[in-house]
Amino acid sequence: MEIIRIPKVMQDTVGGLLIRGRTIGFVPTMGALHEGHLSLVRRSREENEKTVVSIFVNPLQFGPSEDFARYPRDIEGDVEKLEAERVDILFMPEASLMYPVGFSTRVEVGTISETMCGACRPGHFAGVATVVAKLFHIVKPTRAYFGQKDFQQAVVIRRMVKDLNMDVEIVVCPTVREKDGLAMSSRNMYLSGEQRPAAAVLFRSLKGTAESLASGIIQIGEVRHVLRQKILSEPAVSSVDYAGAYDPETLEELAEPKGEILLACAVWIGSTRLIDNILINIKKER
Amino acid sequence: MEIIRIPKVMQDTVGGLLIRGRTIGFVPTMGALHEGHLSLVRRSREENEKTVVSIFVNPLQFGPSEDFARYPRDIEGDVEKLEAERVDILFMPEASLMYPVGFSTRVEVGTISETMCGACRPGHFAGVATVVAKLFHIVKPTRAYFGQKDFQQAVVIRRMVKDLNMDVEIVVCPTVREKDGLAMSSRNMYLSGEQRPAAAVLFRSLKGTAESLASGIIQIGEVRHVLRQKILSEPAVSSVDYAGAYDPETLEELAEPKGEILLACAVWIGSTRLIDNILINIKKER
Repeated sequence: MEIIRIPKVMQDTVGGLLIRGRTIGFVPTMGALHEGHLSLVRRSREENEKTVVSIFVNPLQFGPSEDFARYPRDIEGDVEKLEAERVDILFMPEASLMYPVGFSTRVEVGTISETMCGACRPGHFAGVATVVAKLFHIVKPTRAYFGQKDFQQAVVIRRMVKDLNMDVEIVVCPTVREKDGLAMSSRNMYLSGEQRPAAAVLFRSLKGTAESLASGIIQIGEVRHVLRQKILSEPAVSSVDYAGAYDPETLEELAEPKGEILLACAVWIGSTRLIDNILINIKKER
Repeated sequence: MEIIRIPKVMQDTVGGLLIRGRTIGFVPTMGALHEGHLSLVRRSREENEKTVVSIFVNPLQFGPSEDFARYPRDIEGDVEKLEAERVDILFMPEASLMYPVGFSTRVEVGTISETMCGACRPGHFAGVATVVAKLFHIVKPTRAYFGQKDFQQAVVIRRMVKDLNMDVEIVVCPTVREKDGLAMSSRNMYLSGEQRPAAAVLFRSLKGTAESLASGIIQIGEVRHVLRQKILSEPAVSSVDYAGAYDPETLEELAEPKGEILLACAVWIGSTRLIDNILINIKKER
Protein backbone atom coordinates (compact mmCIF):
# COMPACT_ATOMS: atom_id res chain seq x y z
CA MET A 1 0.00 0.00 0.00
CA GLU A 2 1.33 3.39 -1.04
CA ILE A 3 0.97 6.14 1.60
CA ILE A 4 0.65 9.68 0.22
CA ARG A 5 0.60 12.79 2.40
CA ILE A 6 0.74 15.64 -0.14
CA PRO A 7 -2.49 16.62 -1.96
CA LYS A 8 -0.66 17.51 -5.19
CA VAL A 9 1.20 14.17 -5.22
CA MET A 10 -2.10 12.34 -4.66
CA GLN A 11 -3.70 14.29 -7.52
CA ASP A 12 -0.84 13.54 -9.91
CA THR A 13 -0.84 9.86 -8.94
CA VAL A 14 -4.54 9.40 -9.74
CA GLY A 15 -4.02 11.48 -12.88
CA GLY A 16 -1.61 8.77 -14.03
CA LEU A 17 -4.13 6.03 -13.20
CA LEU A 18 -7.00 7.81 -14.96
CA ILE A 19 -5.06 8.33 -18.17
CA ARG A 20 -4.58 4.56 -18.21
CA GLY A 21 -8.37 4.22 -17.93
CA ARG A 22 -8.41 2.80 -14.38
CA THR A 23 -11.57 3.06 -12.26
CA ILE A 24 -10.93 4.48 -8.81
CA GLY A 25 -12.96 3.67 -5.72
CA PHE A 26 -12.63 6.08 -2.80
CA VAL A 27 -13.42 5.64 0.88
CA PRO A 28 -13.00 8.91 2.82
CA THR A 29 -12.63 8.33 6.57
CA MET A 30 -11.52 10.06 9.75
CA GLY A 31 -9.55 6.94 10.75
CA ALA A 32 -10.00 4.80 13.90
CA LEU A 33 -11.23 2.24 11.40
CA HIS A 34 -13.81 -0.42 12.28
CA GLU A 35 -15.75 -3.09 10.39
CA GLY A 36 -18.10 -0.41 9.02
CA HIS A 37 -15.23 1.32 7.20
CA LEU A 38 -13.79 -2.01 6.09
CA SER A 39 -17.13 -3.02 4.54
CA LEU A 40 -16.88 0.12 2.37
CA VAL A 41 -13.31 -0.77 1.43
CA ARG A 42 -14.36 -4.29 0.40
CA ARG A 43 -17.22 -2.97 -1.71
CA SER A 44 -14.84 -0.50 -3.38
CA ARG A 45 -12.32 -3.28 -4.08
CA GLU A 46 -15.08 -5.34 -5.74
CA GLU A 47 -16.29 -2.51 -7.97
CA ASN A 48 -13.08 -0.67 -8.95
CA GLU A 49 -9.62 -1.40 -10.26
CA LYS A 50 -7.91 0.79 -7.66
CA THR A 51 -9.04 1.72 -4.17
CA VAL A 52 -7.97 4.86 -2.33
CA VAL A 53 -8.76 5.38 1.37
CA SER A 54 -8.24 8.75 3.03
CA ILE A 55 -7.72 9.32 6.74
CA PHE A 56 -8.22 12.94 7.72
CA VAL A 57 -9.79 14.20 10.94
CA ASN A 58 -11.33 17.29 9.40
CA PRO A 59 -11.23 20.25 11.81
CA LEU A 60 -13.74 22.16 9.65
CA GLN A 61 -16.62 19.84 10.57
CA PHE A 62 -16.16 20.06 14.34
CA GLY A 63 -17.76 22.84 16.38
CA PRO A 64 -15.64 24.74 18.93
CA SER A 65 -17.09 22.73 21.85
CA GLU A 66 -16.93 19.38 20.04
CA ASP A 67 -14.55 16.41 20.27
CA PHE A 68 -11.96 17.28 17.57
CA ALA A 69 -8.99 17.09 19.96
CA ARG A 70 -10.02 13.81 21.57
CA TYR A 71 -11.42 12.17 18.41
CA PRO A 72 -9.91 8.65 18.38
CA ARG A 73 -6.71 8.26 16.35
CA ASP A 74 -4.99 4.94 15.66
CA ILE A 75 -2.79 5.34 12.59
CA GLU A 76 -0.76 2.16 13.16
CA GLY A 77 -3.85 0.02 13.62
CA ASP A 78 -5.51 1.68 10.62
CA VAL A 79 -2.54 1.06 8.30
CA GLU A 80 -2.45 -2.58 9.35
CA LYS A 81 -6.18 -3.04 8.62
CA LEU A 82 -5.93 -1.32 5.23
CA GLU A 83 -2.85 -3.38 4.28
CA ALA A 84 -4.82 -6.52 5.14
CA GLU A 85 -7.66 -5.35 2.86
CA ARG A 86 -5.10 -4.74 0.08
CA VAL A 87 -5.96 -1.09 -0.36
CA ASP A 88 -3.85 0.49 -3.13
CA ILE A 89 -3.32 3.99 -1.76
CA LEU A 90 -3.78 5.59 1.66
CA PHE A 91 -4.08 9.39 1.49
CA MET A 92 -3.26 10.97 4.82
CA PRO A 93 -2.73 14.74 4.54
CA GLU A 94 -1.73 17.18 7.28
CA ALA A 95 -4.39 19.76 8.19
CA SER A 96 -1.91 22.54 7.28
CA LEU A 97 -1.82 21.26 3.69
CA MET A 98 -5.60 20.92 3.47
CA TYR A 99 -6.27 24.34 5.01
CA PRO A 100 -3.26 26.58 4.38
CA VAL A 101 -3.20 30.22 5.50
CA GLY A 102 -5.73 32.22 3.47
CA PHE A 103 -8.16 29.33 2.99
CA SER A 104 -11.64 30.85 2.83
CA THR A 105 -14.00 28.81 0.62
CA ARG A 106 -17.06 26.93 1.82
CA VAL A 107 -19.47 24.61 0.04
CA GLU A 108 -22.92 25.16 1.57
CA VAL A 109 -25.70 22.65 0.88
CA GLY A 110 -28.99 24.40 1.72
CA THR A 111 -31.88 23.27 3.87
CA ILE A 112 -31.02 19.56 4.14
CA SER A 113 -27.94 20.68 6.11
CA GLU A 114 -30.08 22.48 8.66
CA THR A 115 -32.36 19.75 10.06
CA MET A 116 -31.50 16.77 12.27
CA CYS A 117 -27.75 16.79 13.06
CA GLY A 118 -27.40 20.12 11.24
CA ALA A 119 -29.73 21.79 13.76
CA CYS A 120 -27.54 20.59 16.66
CA ARG A 121 -24.19 21.09 14.93
CA PRO A 122 -24.26 24.42 13.04
CA GLY A 123 -21.66 24.54 10.25
CA HIS A 124 -21.02 20.80 10.50
CA PHE A 125 -22.32 19.87 7.05
CA ALA A 126 -20.64 22.84 5.36
CA GLY A 127 -17.43 21.46 6.87
CA VAL A 128 -18.25 17.99 5.56
CA ALA A 129 -19.27 19.17 2.07
CA THR A 130 -16.18 21.38 1.79
CA VAL A 131 -13.69 18.66 2.73
CA VAL A 132 -15.44 16.06 0.56
CA ALA A 133 -15.37 18.47 -2.41
CA LYS A 134 -11.63 18.94 -1.81
CA LEU A 135 -11.03 15.20 -1.47
CA PHE A 136 -13.03 14.49 -4.64
CA HIS A 137 -10.89 17.01 -6.54
CA ILE A 138 -7.71 15.46 -5.17
CA VAL A 139 -8.63 11.76 -5.55
CA LYS A 140 -10.90 12.06 -8.66
CA PRO A 141 -12.80 8.87 -7.85
CA THR A 142 -15.10 6.98 -10.18
CA ARG A 143 -17.15 5.92 -7.14
CA ALA A 144 -17.11 7.06 -3.52
CA TYR A 145 -18.40 4.99 -0.59
CA PHE A 146 -20.26 6.19 2.49
CA GLY A 147 -22.03 4.36 5.34
CA GLN A 148 -25.76 4.58 5.88
CA LYS A 149 -25.15 5.22 9.59
CA ASP A 150 -24.32 8.81 8.60
CA PHE A 151 -27.49 9.08 6.55
CA GLN A 152 -27.74 12.87 6.50
CA GLN A 153 -24.10 13.14 5.47
CA ALA A 154 -24.79 10.88 2.48
CA VAL A 155 -27.85 12.96 1.51
CA VAL A 156 -25.84 16.19 1.73
CA ILE A 157 -23.03 14.73 -0.39
CA ARG A 158 -25.42 13.36 -3.02
CA ARG A 159 -27.04 16.80 -3.20
CA MET A 160 -23.67 18.54 -3.59
CA VAL A 161 -22.55 16.08 -6.27
CA LYS A 162 -25.78 16.54 -8.21
CA ASP A 163 -25.94 20.33 -7.79
CA LEU A 164 -22.29 20.90 -8.74
CA ASN A 165 -22.26 18.26 -11.55
CA MET A 166 -19.43 16.34 -9.92
CA ASP A 167 -18.65 13.29 -12.03
CA VAL A 168 -18.60 10.69 -9.25
CA GLU A 169 -21.04 7.94 -8.29
CA ILE A 170 -22.03 7.99 -4.61
CA VAL A 171 -22.52 4.51 -3.13
CA VAL A 172 -24.19 4.22 0.28
CA CYS A 173 -23.56 0.94 2.08
CA PRO A 174 -25.59 -0.68 4.90
CA THR A 175 -24.74 0.12 8.50
CA VAL A 176 -22.56 -2.56 10.08
CA ARG A 177 -23.68 -3.42 13.63
CA GLU A 178 -22.35 -5.09 16.74
CA LYS A 179 -24.15 -8.28 17.88
CA ASP A 180 -26.51 -6.28 20.10
CA GLY A 181 -27.40 -3.94 17.24
CA LEU A 182 -25.18 -0.97 18.13
CA ALA A 183 -24.10 0.73 14.90
CA MET A 184 -20.32 0.62 14.48
CA SER A 185 -18.75 4.02 15.08
CA SER A 186 -15.31 5.28 16.03
CA ARG A 187 -17.02 7.16 18.84
CA ASN A 188 -18.15 3.89 20.47
CA MET A 189 -14.61 3.81 21.94
CA TYR A 190 -15.65 6.67 24.23
CA LEU A 191 -18.21 4.45 26.00
CA SER A 192 -17.36 3.03 29.41
CA GLY A 193 -17.94 -0.64 30.26
CA GLU A 194 -21.29 0.28 31.78
CA GLN A 195 -22.36 2.61 28.98
CA ARG A 196 -21.53 0.18 26.15
CA PRO A 197 -24.50 -2.24 26.64
CA ALA A 198 -26.83 0.73 27.25
CA ALA A 199 -25.92 2.11 23.82
CA ALA A 200 -27.86 -0.72 22.18
CA VAL A 201 -30.97 1.28 23.10
CA LEU A 202 -30.72 3.36 19.89
CA PHE A 203 -31.16 0.49 17.46
CA ARG A 204 -33.60 -1.37 19.75
CA SER A 205 -35.80 1.75 19.98
CA LEU A 206 -35.67 2.42 16.23
CA LYS A 207 -36.64 -1.19 15.49
CA GLY A 208 -39.37 -1.27 18.12
CA THR A 209 -40.86 1.99 16.83
CA ALA A 210 -40.72 0.70 13.24
CA GLU A 211 -42.63 -2.43 14.27
CA SER A 212 -45.31 -0.43 16.09
CA LEU A 213 -45.66 1.77 13.03
CA ALA A 214 -45.83 -1.17 10.61
CA SER A 215 -48.48 -2.96 12.65
CA GLY A 216 -50.56 0.21 12.99
CA ILE A 217 -50.22 0.42 16.79
CA ILE A 218 -48.91 3.97 16.39
CA GLN A 219 -49.35 6.60 13.67
CA ILE A 220 -46.51 8.49 12.05
CA GLY A 221 -47.32 11.63 14.03
CA GLU A 222 -46.59 9.71 17.22
CA VAL A 223 -43.13 8.48 16.20
CA ARG A 224 -41.31 11.47 17.61
CA HIS A 225 -42.78 10.96 21.07
CA VAL A 226 -42.70 7.15 21.13
CA LEU A 227 -39.13 6.87 19.87
CA ARG A 228 -37.91 9.46 22.35
CA GLN A 229 -39.67 7.70 25.25
CA LYS A 230 -38.19 4.34 24.30
CA ILE A 231 -34.70 5.83 24.19
CA LEU A 232 -35.13 7.74 27.46
CA SER A 233 -36.27 4.55 29.20
CA GLU A 234 -32.57 3.61 29.27
CA PRO A 235 -31.15 5.30 32.40
CA ALA A 236 -27.65 5.76 30.87
CA VAL A 237 -29.11 8.15 28.25
CA SER A 238 -28.47 11.75 29.30
CA SER A 239 -30.44 13.46 26.51
CA VAL A 240 -31.88 13.13 23.01
CA ASP A 241 -30.84 15.70 20.35
CA TYR A 242 -33.57 14.52 17.98
CA ALA A 243 -35.68 11.44 17.28
CA GLY A 244 -38.32 11.14 14.61
CA ALA A 245 -39.60 10.07 11.20
CA TYR A 246 -38.16 11.92 8.21
CA ASP A 247 -38.48 12.06 4.45
CA PRO A 248 -35.30 10.26 3.30
CA GLU A 249 -34.82 12.75 0.44
CA THR A 250 -35.71 16.14 1.90
CA LEU A 251 -35.01 15.14 5.55
CA GLU A 252 -38.16 17.01 6.57
CA GLU A 253 -40.02 15.52 9.50
CA LEU A 254 -42.99 13.51 8.22
CA ALA A 255 -46.54 14.27 9.32
CA GLU A 256 -48.00 11.44 7.24
CA PRO A 257 -46.62 8.23 5.74
CA LYS A 258 -45.04 8.51 2.30
CA GLY A 259 -43.28 5.50 0.71
CA GLU A 260 -39.89 5.15 2.35
CA ILE A 261 -39.49 6.55 5.84
CA LEU A 262 -36.30 7.35 7.68
CA LEU A 263 -36.40 6.75 11.43
CA ALA A 264 -33.41 8.49 12.96
CA CYS A 265 -32.06 9.70 16.28
CA ALA A 266 -29.09 11.38 17.94
CA VAL A 267 -28.55 10.51 21.57
CA TRP A 268 -26.12 11.47 24.32
CA ILE A 269 -24.81 8.74 26.59
CA GLY A 270 -22.75 10.65 29.14
CA SER A 271 -20.45 12.86 27.07
CA THR A 272 -20.71 10.67 23.97
CA ARG A 273 -23.08 11.58 21.14
CA LEU A 274 -24.27 8.62 19.05
CA ILE A 275 -26.48 8.57 15.96
CA ASP A 276 -28.38 5.79 14.22
CA ASN A 277 -31.16 5.33 11.68
CA ILE A 278 -33.19 2.76 9.79
CA LEU A 279 -35.11 3.00 6.53
CA ILE A 280 -38.55 1.44 6.45
CA ASN A 281 -41.41 1.02 4.01
CA ILE A 282 -44.94 1.34 5.35
CA LYS A 283 -47.69 0.27 2.96
CA LYS A 284 -50.09 3.12 2.35
CA GLU A 285 -53.69 2.62 3.44
CA ARG A 286 -56.30 2.67 0.70
CA MET B 1 -18.00 23.22 -34.23
CA GLU B 2 -20.05 20.83 -32.14
CA ILE B 3 -22.88 22.45 -30.16
CA ILE B 4 -23.84 20.65 -26.93
CA ARG B 5 -26.78 21.65 -24.76
CA ILE B 6 -26.97 18.85 -22.16
CA PRO B 7 -24.50 18.91 -19.23
CA LYS B 8 -24.21 15.11 -19.07
CA VAL B 9 -23.49 14.90 -22.83
CA MET B 10 -20.82 17.59 -22.46
CA GLN B 11 -19.27 15.71 -19.52
CA ASP B 12 -19.19 12.41 -21.42
CA THR B 13 -17.73 14.10 -24.51
CA VAL B 14 -14.78 15.59 -22.61
CA GLY B 15 -14.42 12.29 -20.75
CA GLY B 16 -13.71 10.72 -24.14
CA LEU B 17 -11.17 13.42 -24.99
CA LEU B 18 -9.40 13.15 -21.63
CA ILE B 19 -8.98 9.40 -21.85
CA ARG B 20 -7.16 10.02 -25.13
CA GLY B 21 -4.88 12.42 -23.23
CA ARG B 22 -6.12 15.62 -24.90
CA THR B 23 -5.60 18.99 -23.18
CA ILE B 24 -8.77 21.05 -22.96
CA GLY B 25 -8.91 24.83 -22.90
CA PHE B 26 -12.12 26.38 -21.61
CA VAL B 27 -13.54 29.88 -22.06
CA PRO B 28 -16.72 30.38 -19.98
CA THR B 29 -18.80 33.33 -21.24
CA MET B 30 -22.26 34.84 -20.99
CA GLY B 31 -22.33 35.35 -24.79
CA ALA B 32 -22.72 38.63 -26.71
CA LEU B 33 -19.12 37.93 -27.65
CA HIS B 34 -16.61 40.68 -28.41
CA GLU B 35 -12.87 40.89 -29.13
CA GLY B 36 -12.13 40.44 -25.41
CA HIS B 37 -13.76 37.00 -25.43
CA LEU B 38 -12.14 36.13 -28.75
CA SER B 39 -8.68 36.96 -27.38
CA LEU B 40 -9.30 34.33 -24.68
CA VAL B 41 -10.41 31.83 -27.33
CA ARG B 42 -7.25 32.45 -29.37
CA ARG B 43 -5.04 32.00 -26.33
CA SER B 44 -6.84 28.76 -25.49
CA ARG B 45 -6.42 27.50 -29.06
CA GLU B 46 -2.66 28.20 -28.85
CA GLU B 47 -2.21 26.39 -25.55
CA ASN B 48 -4.58 23.40 -25.78
CA GLU B 49 -5.50 20.62 -28.19
CA LYS B 50 -9.23 21.22 -27.82
CA THR B 51 -11.09 24.41 -26.96
CA VAL B 52 -14.53 24.51 -25.35
CA VAL B 53 -16.49 27.77 -25.06
CA SER B 54 -19.62 27.99 -22.92
CA ILE B 55 -22.39 30.53 -23.33
CA PHE B 56 -24.65 30.71 -20.31
CA VAL B 57 -26.27 33.83 -18.87
CA ASN B 58 -26.14 32.68 -15.27
CA PRO B 59 -29.22 33.82 -13.32
CA LEU B 60 -27.51 33.00 -10.01
CA GLN B 61 -25.04 35.89 -10.33
CA PHE B 62 -27.64 38.60 -10.99
CA GLY B 63 -29.39 40.40 -8.15
CA PRO B 64 -33.18 40.83 -8.25
CA SER B 65 -32.91 44.44 -9.46
CA GLU B 66 -30.11 43.74 -11.95
CA ASP B 67 -30.04 43.34 -15.73
CA PHE B 68 -30.52 39.56 -16.15
CA ALA B 69 -33.59 39.88 -18.38
CA ARG B 70 -32.11 42.53 -20.65
CA TYR B 71 -28.53 41.18 -20.65
CA PRO B 72 -27.48 41.21 -24.36
CA ARG B 73 -28.02 37.94 -26.23
CA ASP B 74 -26.81 37.26 -29.78
CA ILE B 75 -26.58 33.50 -30.26
CA GLU B 76 -26.38 33.63 -34.07
CA GLY B 77 -23.61 36.20 -34.08
CA ASP B 78 -21.78 34.31 -31.31
CA VAL B 79 -21.90 30.99 -33.18
CA GLU B 80 -20.55 32.68 -36.30
CA LYS B 81 -17.63 34.23 -34.39
CA LEU B 82 -16.76 30.96 -32.64
CA GLU B 83 -16.92 29.02 -35.93
CA ALA B 84 -14.52 31.56 -37.42
CA GLU B 85 -12.12 31.00 -34.48
CA ARG B 86 -12.38 27.23 -35.07
CA VAL B 87 -13.62 26.46 -31.58
CA ASP B 88 -14.14 22.70 -31.13
CA ILE B 89 -17.17 22.64 -28.84
CA LEU B 90 -19.77 25.23 -27.83
CA PHE B 91 -21.58 24.32 -24.61
CA MET B 92 -24.87 26.16 -24.33
CA PRO B 93 -27.09 24.72 -21.57
CA GLU B 94 -30.63 25.76 -20.62
CA ALA B 95 -30.96 27.30 -17.14
CA SER B 96 -33.44 24.54 -16.22
CA LEU B 97 -30.72 21.93 -16.77
CA MET B 98 -28.13 23.90 -14.80
CA TYR B 99 -30.50 24.66 -11.92
CA PRO B 100 -33.18 21.96 -11.78
CA VAL B 101 -35.85 21.93 -9.07
CA GLY B 102 -34.25 21.20 -5.69
CA PHE B 103 -30.93 22.85 -6.53
CA SER B 104 -29.58 24.25 -3.26
CA THR B 105 -25.75 24.28 -3.17
CA ARG B 106 -23.57 27.39 -3.08
CA VAL B 107 -19.82 27.85 -3.25
CA GLU B 108 -18.95 30.83 -1.04
CA VAL B 109 -15.50 32.43 -1.34
CA GLY B 110 -14.96 34.46 1.86
CA THR B 111 -13.87 38.04 2.31
CA ILE B 112 -12.50 38.71 -1.20
CA SER B 113 -16.11 38.32 -2.39
CA GLU B 114 -17.29 41.08 -0.10
CA THR B 115 -15.24 44.11 -1.16
CA MET B 116 -15.40 46.15 -4.38
CA CYS B 117 -18.13 44.72 -6.66
CA GLY B 118 -19.12 42.25 -3.93
CA ALA B 119 -20.10 45.12 -1.62
CA CYS B 120 -22.44 46.54 -4.31
CA ARG B 121 -23.71 43.19 -5.59
CA PRO B 122 -24.41 40.90 -2.60
CA GLY B 123 -24.41 37.22 -3.61
CA HIS B 124 -22.88 38.00 -7.00
CA PHE B 125 -19.59 36.18 -6.46
CA ALA B 126 -21.24 33.18 -4.79
CA GLY B 127 -23.29 32.96 -8.01
CA VAL B 128 -20.13 33.23 -10.11
CA ALA B 129 -18.14 30.71 -8.02
CA THR B 130 -21.04 28.24 -8.03
CA VAL B 131 -21.59 28.30 -11.79
CA VAL B 132 -17.86 28.16 -12.52
CA ALA B 133 -17.51 25.15 -10.17
CA LYS B 134 -20.37 23.47 -12.07
CA LEU B 135 -18.86 24.33 -15.46
CA PHE B 136 -15.43 23.07 -14.38
CA HIS B 137 -16.99 19.76 -13.33
CA ILE B 138 -18.86 19.50 -16.62
CA VAL B 139 -16.05 20.60 -18.97
CA LYS B 140 -13.05 19.29 -16.94
CA PRO B 141 -10.62 21.77 -18.50
CA THR B 142 -6.84 21.62 -18.32
CA ARG B 143 -6.79 25.44 -18.44
CA ALA B 144 -9.56 28.03 -18.11
CA TYR B 145 -9.34 31.58 -19.45
CA PHE B 146 -10.67 34.78 -17.89
CA GLY B 147 -10.27 38.46 -18.74
CA GLN B 148 -8.45 40.89 -16.49
CA LYS B 149 -11.32 43.36 -16.89
CA ASP B 150 -13.24 41.23 -14.36
CA PHE B 151 -10.27 41.27 -11.99
CA GLN B 152 -12.16 40.44 -8.81
CA GLN B 153 -13.91 37.54 -10.55
CA ALA B 154 -10.51 36.10 -11.51
CA VAL B 155 -9.24 36.49 -7.92
CA VAL B 156 -12.36 34.77 -6.54
CA ILE B 157 -12.02 31.89 -9.02
CA ARG B 158 -8.30 31.44 -8.32
CA ARG B 159 -9.11 31.34 -4.61
CA MET B 160 -11.86 28.75 -5.11
CA VAL B 161 -9.63 26.60 -7.33
CA LYS B 162 -6.81 26.71 -4.79
CA ASP B 163 -9.03 26.19 -1.72
CA LEU B 164 -10.98 23.29 -3.24
CA ASN B 165 -7.93 21.68 -4.94
CA MET B 166 -9.54 21.90 -8.37
CA ASP B 167 -7.11 20.54 -10.94
CA VAL B 168 -7.32 23.37 -13.47
CA GLU B 169 -4.91 26.15 -14.39
CA ILE B 170 -6.47 29.62 -14.33
CA VAL B 171 -5.13 31.94 -17.04
CA VAL B 172 -5.96 35.65 -16.81
CA CYS B 173 -5.56 37.55 -20.10
CA PRO B 174 -5.10 41.31 -20.63
CA THR B 175 -8.14 43.53 -21.02
CA VAL B 176 -8.92 44.26 -24.68
CA ARG B 177 -9.82 47.92 -25.24
CA GLU B 178 -11.51 50.09 -27.84
CA LYS B 179 -9.36 52.76 -29.51
CA ASP B 180 -10.31 55.35 -26.89
CA GLY B 181 -9.39 52.97 -24.06
CA LEU B 182 -12.89 51.74 -23.11
CA ALA B 183 -12.60 48.14 -21.89
CA MET B 184 -14.57 45.78 -24.12
CA SER B 185 -17.72 44.53 -22.40
CA SER B 186 -21.02 43.11 -23.55
CA ARG B 187 -22.66 45.83 -21.46
CA ASN B 188 -21.13 48.56 -23.68
CA MET B 189 -24.07 47.80 -26.01
CA TYR B 190 -26.35 49.50 -23.47
CA LEU B 191 -24.62 52.86 -24.04
CA SER B 192 -26.33 55.48 -26.19
CA GLY B 193 -24.47 57.37 -28.90
CA GLU B 194 -23.84 60.20 -26.44
CA GLN B 195 -22.85 57.97 -23.54
CA ARG B 196 -20.38 55.86 -25.52
CA PRO B 197 -17.55 58.46 -25.81
CA ALA B 198 -18.13 59.51 -22.19
CA ALA B 199 -17.44 55.91 -21.08
CA ALA B 200 -13.76 56.37 -21.97
CA VAL B 201 -13.54 58.31 -18.70
CA LEU B 202 -12.97 55.08 -16.70
CA PHE B 203 -9.70 54.10 -18.36
CA ARG B 204 -8.55 57.73 -18.76
CA SER B 205 -9.07 58.36 -15.05
CA LEU B 206 -7.34 55.12 -14.01
CA LYS B 207 -4.34 55.95 -16.20
CA GLY B 208 -4.21 59.57 -15.07
CA THR B 209 -4.33 58.55 -11.42
CA ALA B 210 -1.62 55.93 -11.99
CA GLU B 211 0.63 58.58 -13.52
CA SER B 212 0.10 61.02 -10.66
CA LEU B 213 0.88 58.22 -8.23
CA ALA B 214 4.00 57.11 -10.10
CA SER B 215 5.38 60.63 -10.30
CA GLY B 216 4.70 61.28 -6.63
CA ILE B 217 2.16 64.07 -7.22
CA ILE B 218 -0.33 62.15 -5.09
CA GLN B 219 0.08 59.57 -2.32
CA ILE B 220 -1.73 56.23 -2.22
CA GLY B 221 -4.12 57.48 0.46
CA GLU B 222 -5.34 60.12 -1.99
CA VAL B 223 -6.16 57.68 -4.82
CA ARG B 224 -9.71 57.07 -3.72
CA HIS B 225 -10.57 60.79 -3.78
CA VAL B 226 -8.56 61.73 -6.88
CA LEU B 227 -9.81 58.83 -9.00
CA ARG B 228 -13.41 59.50 -8.03
CA GLN B 229 -13.07 63.21 -8.84
CA LYS B 230 -11.56 62.47 -12.24
CA ILE B 231 -14.42 60.09 -13.06
CA LEU B 232 -17.11 62.48 -11.79
CA SER B 233 -15.68 65.29 -13.94
CA GLU B 234 -17.43 63.55 -16.85
CA PRO B 235 -21.03 64.84 -16.79
CA ALA B 236 -22.48 61.59 -18.23
CA VAL B 237 -21.40 59.71 -15.09
CA SER B 238 -24.36 59.31 -12.73
CA SER B 239 -22.50 57.73 -9.80
CA VAL B 240 -19.42 55.81 -8.69
CA ASP B 241 -19.91 52.50 -6.86
CA TYR B 242 -16.26 52.39 -5.83
CA ALA B 243 -12.90 53.73 -6.96
CA GLY B 244 -9.59 53.12 -5.27
CA ALA B 245 -6.26 51.37 -4.85
CA TYR B 246 -6.39 47.74 -3.76
CA ASP B 247 -4.08 44.88 -2.90
CA PRO B 248 -4.34 42.65 -6.01
CA GLU B 249 -4.34 39.48 -3.86
CA THR B 250 -6.51 40.31 -0.85
CA LEU B 251 -8.49 43.09 -2.61
CA GLU B 252 -8.21 45.16 0.56
CA GLU B 253 -7.99 48.90 0.00
CA LEU B 254 -4.37 50.00 0.33
CA ALA B 255 -3.29 52.65 2.82
CA GLU B 256 0.35 52.48 1.74
CA PRO B 257 2.16 51.30 -1.42
CA LYS B 258 3.04 47.60 -1.57
CA GLY B 259 4.56 46.15 -4.77
CA GLU B 260 1.77 45.68 -7.27
CA ILE B 261 -1.27 47.91 -6.89
CA LEU B 262 -4.70 47.44 -8.41
CA LEU B 263 -6.48 50.63 -9.40
CA ALA B 264 -10.13 49.78 -9.98
CA CYS B 265 -13.53 51.39 -10.31
CA ALA B 266 -17.19 50.67 -10.95
CA VAL B 267 -19.15 53.49 -12.51
CA TRP B 268 -22.73 54.13 -13.57
CA ILE B 269 -23.35 55.90 -16.86
CA GLY B 270 -27.08 56.33 -16.92
CA SER B 271 -28.50 52.87 -16.17
CA THR B 272 -25.34 51.06 -17.30
CA ARG B 273 -22.79 49.88 -14.77
CA LEU B 274 -19.23 49.59 -16.11
CA ILE B 275 -16.08 48.35 -14.40
CA ASP B 276 -12.42 48.68 -15.25
CA ASN B 277 -9.00 48.32 -13.61
CA ILE B 278 -5.27 48.54 -14.20
CA LEU B 279 -2.35 46.93 -12.39
CA ILE B 280 0.61 49.16 -11.63
CA ASN B 281 3.97 48.86 -9.92
CA ILE B 282 5.14 51.79 -7.81
CA LYS B 283 8.77 51.65 -6.68
CA LYS B 284 9.00 51.80 -2.93
CA GLU B 285 10.81 54.79 -1.42
CA ARG B 286 13.91 54.04 0.56
